[in-house]
Amino acid sequence: MIPVGEALDLILGEVKPLGYERVPLLSSLGRVLAEDITATISNPPLDNSAMDGYAVRAGDTAGAVDGRLVSLKVIADLPAGNILREKIGTGEAVRIMTGAPVPDGADAVVMVEYTERTESGGEKSVRIAREASPGDNIRRAGEDFKVGDAVIQKGHTIRPAEVAMLAATGKPFVTVYQRPRVAVLSTGDELVDIYETPTDGKIINSNSYTISAQILACGCEAVQLGIARDRREDLEEKMRSGLNSDAIISSGGVSVGDFDLVKEVLRDMGSEMHFWKVAMKPGKPLAFGTIGGKPAFGLPGNPISSMVSFEQFVRPALLKMAGRRDIFKRSITATLTKDVKKKAGRVNFVRAILEPSGNGFRVTPLEGQGSGIISSMVKANALILLPLEETSFSEGQVINVHPLDESLLYSDNPSDELIS
Amino acid sequence: MIPVGEALDLILGEVKPLGYERVPLLSSLGRVLAEDITATISNPPLDNSAMDGYAVRAGDTAGAVDGRLVSLKVIADLPAGNILREKIGTGEAVRIMTGAPVPDGADAVVMVEYTERTESGGEKSVRIAREASPGDNIRRAGEDFKVGDAVIQKGHTIRPAEVAMLAATGKPFVTVYQRPRVAVLSTGDELVDIYETPTDGKIINSNSYTISAQILACGCEAVQLGIARDRREDLEEKMRSGLNSDAIISSGGVSVGDFDLVKEVLRDMGSEMHFWKVAMKPGKPLAFGTIGGKPAFGLPGNPISSMVSFEQFVRPALLKMAGRRDIFKRSITATLTKDVKKKAGRVNFVRAILEPSGNGFRVTPLEGQGSGIISSMVKANALILLPLEETSFSEGQVINVHPLDESLLYSDNPSDELIS
Repeated sequence: MIPVGEALDLILGEVKPLGYERVPLLSSLGRVLAEDITATISNPPLDNSAMDGYAVRAGDTAGAVDGRLVSLKVIADLPAGNILREKIGTGEAVRIMTGAPVPDGADAVVMVEYTERTESGGEKSVRIAREASPGDNIRRAGEDFKVGDAVIQKGHTIRPAEVAMLAATGKPFVTVYQRPRVAVLSTGDELVDIYETPTDGKIINSNSYTISAQILACGCEAVQLGIARDRREDLEEKMRSGLNSDAIISSGGVSVGDFDLVKEVLRDMGSEMHFWKVAMKPGKPLAFGTIGGKPAFGLPGNPISSMVSFEQFVRPALLKMAGRRDIFKRSITATLTKDVKKKAGRVNFVRAILEPSGNGFRVTPLEGQGSGIISSMVKANALILLPLEETSFSEGQVINVHPLDESLLYSDNPSDELIS
Repeated sequence: MIPVGEALDLILGEVKPLGYERVPLLSSLGRVLAEDITATISNPPLDNSAMDGYAVRAGDTAGAVDGRLVSLKVIADLPAGNILREKIGTGEAVRIMTGAPVPDGADAVVMVEYTERTESGGEKSVRIAREASPGDNIRRAGEDFKVGDAVIQKGHTIRPAEVAMLAATGKPFVTVYQRPRVAVLSTGDELVDIYETPTDGKIINSNSYTISAQILACGCEAVQLGIARDRREDLEEKMRSGLNSDAIISSGGVSVGDFDLVKEVLRDMGSEMHFWKVAMKPGKPLAFGTIGGKPAFGLPGNPISSMVSFEQFVRPALLKMAGRRDIFKRSITATLTKDVKKKAGRVNFVRAILEPSGNGFRVTPLEGQGSGIISSMVKANALILLPLEETSFSEGQVINVHPLDESLLYSDNPSDELIS
């Protein structure tokens, strides 16, 4: 048996980021930036008002308070997106909207809430009830970013905040890493398609759907090749179709059985196929190699062995191909709510429920850890990682866990700060 | 000013889940199940082998060890997906593959690793080196689920595990909640489109892209209506186009300014528009109402005010429309790495960097908290929630944080258990 880390190293040593492509800004969401972004405009472009109010010379407002208003002459009404060509003189003010450039001569903006507009005989005035200091309610040109600033680095995953930045710097198109296209096939005469009725101990080919869902969930494209029967020609033909994609994943046919052809066909098609017994449970048998430079994974046929092997080996490889750097699941520490035992010699991945508890988390292993038990995987939102050689783990012990989904980030109830 | 929670209650009181639709299994990923799933087949369908090996009568292997092999007659080779019609008798064995139904008469499977195949004079035999107990390496029919079992409940979000279950129970199509289609427009004469060069203090309409990205990031569809100018006709025409969608989001034009038409147009088009000053920072002004039964949100024009308002009000509403129950961001507790001050009377959402630290997390507020500063939002992976009335927070204090992305779940390095 080889350690999980050794298999992972060998796999990641063989895969590298795909090429680049240029996509419209909104299509870049969730993709990885393949260029450094430098600002070609400044934000804000000019000093501008942070509030709706009146642009004034701060000195003119000296001593203004609620009972003692200071009156200024309003020389213009300035909507956002307009520039005033005149300069504000002593005793003058300009009505200004949020975002509008501050006129020359003004050095502060008084919020409209602290003003009173008056008009008499065609003369427009405003009465100011707060003393302003220079700079009040003014956003400085370039305070967000200036022409030439490095605003986003290559390798950054594009979230809504990056879309905001790319839009604000005027980038309708963005260069991102290509998204891996991954071919999926299942092997075995015991499989029937999802729309068929399984009889005589046959089972539905669920793995193709599960693996495709895992591929989609990590932002890649899935190409479903269907079921390859246990005949060399069928398997080889489907594998060759898979070579049109960027990677191939098969499930089933990698254990020691006589009827397993996957190894043989893969060995004939490519060079350098590895057939490992990995020191993990579930998911011991694993095949990996490259065919024409493209990574090919042979996952075990048991549904949960296949899912867990995908989690540990395939996803990091696909994320690396997609240009990402944070390709591994992060361990979250949680307190074990009951005792757990295992055999030495294999890392165990235990389906479990992870929940918030106090300032941290607690985790409860589920019943039904067999590699064919899908129902416990539906209940689980995390995998507990039980280290290679340790055999006994106690209630109350702090242990590492990999969340399986985003349930950690969402709740049925709003946070206390929002409701109190 | 109204509290965040009150605005949230009023909004969520007005929105309800959209209708259902039936989609192909793989298209259901990330959607919310709108039907209870009951198994119409059992898994496994029959008692079957958990290993490649030999099906035997356990009693026949009594006393078998490495030095003292027990020889049995091999009466058949049974690939997965095949059923043996004969019954195994005393002294007999059947070669069996993982997943193949266990033949009548056999009550255990011996792993192939503990066997030695022999053939002499056309007689096939196997020598067994391990004593088997009844039930060894046999998966019982229905041990995962049985016909009639409730396997997934309505309201469950479909992840790869649910796809596995739906496939295994033979469901090529699934009923899910419809995905909200959301119209987006920005308002203001100060805006230019992303492919134009902004001059004279004009700025690029980044909000439409940012809001669309936020809509996409929560699994909904975005319909971009573009920029509405500060003229009643233009705004009303675009708003009416928006009524073809399930919800409308505008940004800009909801503050107290004279040039703001959004309120007026919304009020004329619908009933019951609310114009709130919400006790939060950034994001004080907010408009909300329903037009023809469809929720309409008027977000502030400042980029970060708009993003944070979307986080607090729009996403929970859209997730509720999409059938989800866990519609709120969950608070994660983290230790503050420096002192923070704020004014009383508004909940503050502070852009920050959240990082693992010991068995928990630490959080560091970023420079540049102005509502127009996009660059700090690009650096941030979390928002600190500073409660309404408190004004002073100290280094070392444990505080609540909302993660903004999945960075908490991924790492640049594999977990220790995998590499040791």
